Amino acid sequence: MLTPAQKKFLASLFPGEAASFDEAACFVHGSDASRLPGMPWGVVRPTSAEQVAELLAWAQRERVPLLPRGRATGVAGAAVAANGGLVVSLLRMNRILEISPGDFLARCEPGVITADLQKACAAKGRFYPPDPGSVGISTIGGNIATCAGGMRAVKYGVTRDWVLGLTAVLPGGAVVRTGGRCHKDVAGLDLTRLLVGSEGTLGIVVEATLRLIPLPEASASLLAGFADMGALMRAAQAVFGGGLLPTAMEFFDQGTLRALSLTAESVPWPSGTAAALLLRLDGSAGAVAAELGKLDALLTPCAPTFRELAPDPAAEERLWELRRLVSPALYKLGPDKLADDLAVPRGVIAEAVAAFTAIGERRGVTVVCFGHLGDGNVHTDVMYDAADPRQNEAAHAAKDEILAAALGLGGTITGEHGVGLAKLPHLPGQIGAAERGLMRRLKAAFDPLGVMNPGKAY
Amino acid sequence: MLTPAQKKFLASLFPGEAASFDEAACFVHGSDASRLPGMPWGVVRPTSAEQVAELLAWAQRERVPLLPRGRATGVAGAAVAANGGLVVSLLRMNRILEISPGDFLARCEPGVITADLQKACAAKGRFYPPDPGSVGISTIGGNIATCAGGMRAVKYGVTRDWVLGLTAVLPGGAVVRTGGRCHKDVAGLDLTRLLVGSEGTLGIVVEATLRLIPLPEASASLLAGFADMGALMRAAQAVFGGGLLPTAMEFFDQGTLRALSLTAESVPWPSGTAAALLLRLDGSAGAVAAELGKLDALLTPCAPTFRELAPDPAAEERLWELRRLVSPALYKLGPDKLADDLAVPRGVIAEAVAAFTAIGERRGVTVVCFGHLGDGNVHTDVMYDAADPRQNEAAHAAKDEILAAALGLGGTITGEHGVGLAKLPHLPGQIGAAERGLMRRLKAAFDPLGVMNPGKAY
Repeated sequence: MLTPAQKKFLASLFPGEAASFDEAACFVHGSDASRLPGMPWGVVRPTSAEQVAELLAWAQRERVPLLPRGRATGVAGAAVAANGGLVVSLLRMNRILEISPGDFLARCEPGVITADLQKACAAKGRFYPPDPGSVGISTIGGNIATCAGGMRAVKYGVTRDWVLGLTAVLPGGAVVRTGGRCHKDVAGLDLTRLLVGSEGTLGIVVEATLRLIPLPEASASLLAGFADMGALMRAAQAVFGGGLLPTAMEFFDQGTLRALSLTAESVPWPSGTAAALLLRLDGSAGAVAAELGKLDALLTPCAPTFRELAPDPAAEERLWELRRLVSPALYKLGPDKLADDLAVPRGVIAEAVAAFTAIGERRGVTVVCFGHLGDGNVHTDVMYDAADPRQNEAAHAAKDEILAAALGLGGTITGEHGVGLAKLPHLPGQIGAAERGLMRRLKAAFDPLGVMNPGKAY
Repeated sequence: MLTPAQKKFLASLFPGEAASFDEAACFVHGSDASRLPGMPWGVVRPTSAEQVAELLAWAQRERVPLLPRGRATGVAGAAVAANGGLVVSLLRMNRILEISPGDFLARCEPGVITADLQKACAAKGRFYPPDPGSVGISTIGGNIATCAGGMRAVKYGVTRDWVLGLTAVLPGGAVVRTGGRCHKDVAGLDLTRLLVGSEGTLGIVVEATLRLIPLPEASASLLAGFADMGALMRAAQAVFGGGLLPTAMEFFDQGTLRALSLTAESVPWPSGTAAALLLRLDGSAGAVAAELGKLDALLTPCAPTFRELAPDPAAEERLWELRRLVSPALYKLGPDKLADDLAVPRGVIAEAVAAFTAIGERRGVTVVCFGHLGDGNVHTDVMYDAADPRQNEAAHAAKDEILAAALGLGGTITGEHGVGLAKLPHLPGQIGAAERGLMRRLKAAFDPLGVMNPGKAY
């Protein structure tokens, strides 16, 4: 708990509504999209890097744990005050500071919504590719904290690949500037990418410089169905084998298709379709047209049950609407969900999907797999009824078994959501004691007294 | 110097020719491509990770500085034993362990020549894009140590973007495994990218897992001349403005063109050409053909003095042969060279080239600029006669002024070669005391007694 003296200091640093200690404010910040509980001691809302620096000097002196927070869309519980502490909401630091078409970069504060930044860049003919599922509501700061991925990662990589530089405040109040405005820079250790994905455990990012590329002129998409996952995987290999690197390569397994059929007004696939592949291409108009034709030709010998080509944005929108419908549609298969963002090596995706599905069948719960086939990032959801104690137990047992199976296939427990609190118990199954010890020594170099988001991530 | 007991230990760990302490062996390892002098105390040549682990346990116990070394093509002196120490040559750890077309990855030891790995990948339809100028002679381990860049970085990024995981041995002998076989993985702090670019100061990489993509089906190139750098920069902006992201975008300034004209049997540009732009595209055949036409159409209004289109590999080879000829050709302008790999923000490249050239004119030495325009990575060479004391002094003064001018434009002292020894005095002009202190604390988390390549990089 905060002492009266501590509250007084915070109220003077964050005047008016910028500091709150009442129960309602704490309750509002008492979880994130993980739904894990954890009531903070209060909330402060800085508007400047100077305030953040003063706060971090004070927090280290007073040993008050800090929980940096954007829109709290994270599903791993990284923003949850499991053992108390002060939430630092960065939503008031939400200015786009610069979009430089000539330097191909954007500078912004952490509270900017990612989709807002993308729109502002597109208006100047520039493109910021990372697109986590939460792109319309999550912040750049949150994306940096989790190294957010998304559907375009097959071609464009993840958040870490698009950060040129950061300004971060460390416990004690020191301000460090990493990287800069250059697209190539190898001076010194790569502090930038150590901060990206650190889940708020090292310091607070107060400004980011992001790399942009030319806005692609055109895009096109294609949806194809297959009789089983094996045929779908052969089709995916045929695409790559033809030298194509699509922007996005998503898949739906049989359970996902069933959920969509129960939800959408109409679905484009015929009966006999047990898996579907959704591909997107982007680039200059002539190149996209040529590649869409090539893609179609590569898929033809792979025995698709159907193909739907979407050569323009309006036609594409109909296909991607199905993709966005997946998460809500899954509740047709069960009222509750245990979601994972496992990734496995690309070559074993079909094997992984078969193994995860079989685990669900054996345990008597429905397991569906869908998502980022192109980079092996398989969203695996256990659908069940939490009100039924037998299903509850079976679902959690299935989830643990699925995580173990993913690791057994050379996979990771988290492809893009992060470890946070929720996956911490599973981390030692993936990362050894020597590596975790090294991570904790690195944290100590930033945060010797452990005030930044303690007990999370590693 | 090594004691007789230390030599005895090393001779038993590295039997026969695998350990050398004689003057000839030390002399051979007494510099790198930086030409900076530094005689080591001996050389060992491990063939296994186990030997490296025993060596690093011993080195920490005995406080013997280690200098990991590949083909020593680095130009910043990172492999030079400026204050003694033991060279660890990794050239005998040169096995390609696996190329998995299905998982889209390669595993190899650090001593593999990068071009050899690329050829082996291409034979299986896969592509490892990083291509430093030294690609035919430098090693994957050296590329990782420096985060090597190259010409394809505009589209494909640099070495750090292609490393999925590493196995490294730390001082004391602990073996750490970072990342893995998944193309998306956000579990824990990003140890992989902390090791990439660390210039041998944290540990010794004994195995790398590298990301591959489908081998592009086709490529095409285009060379265009302009009356001045301003016109060339407008042309470059027109390319990006048209939504094209070329694989490579190289430039030659007036001095570089003059050196090439004095060296090549014939050159394609007419008189009145004071700058040239060399572009490459890659992708599927239809897309490349469409984009080459678009590129040509985008350049036409930019008043080129000439254009030469190279739609197939044989035609391309004639253009890229000119690019490879640049380094030797520059010696037509002066017998000695001070080379820098500065990078500046993309929007100020023309300003930077004008400033660097003017510095040379004022100092009475020839300054030429060429290289990776697409990512602002401007190779800047001062050509002079070291035998002339006045020119010698003027050249070094010009170099210092050029580095300061680059920093003044928001640039970096090293876009792709690293800091090593050569650029260490200039680093505080770019990176502040707080950040360098943090880097040294991070090093201490890996190497508490400072045995790994001490006195280098940061």
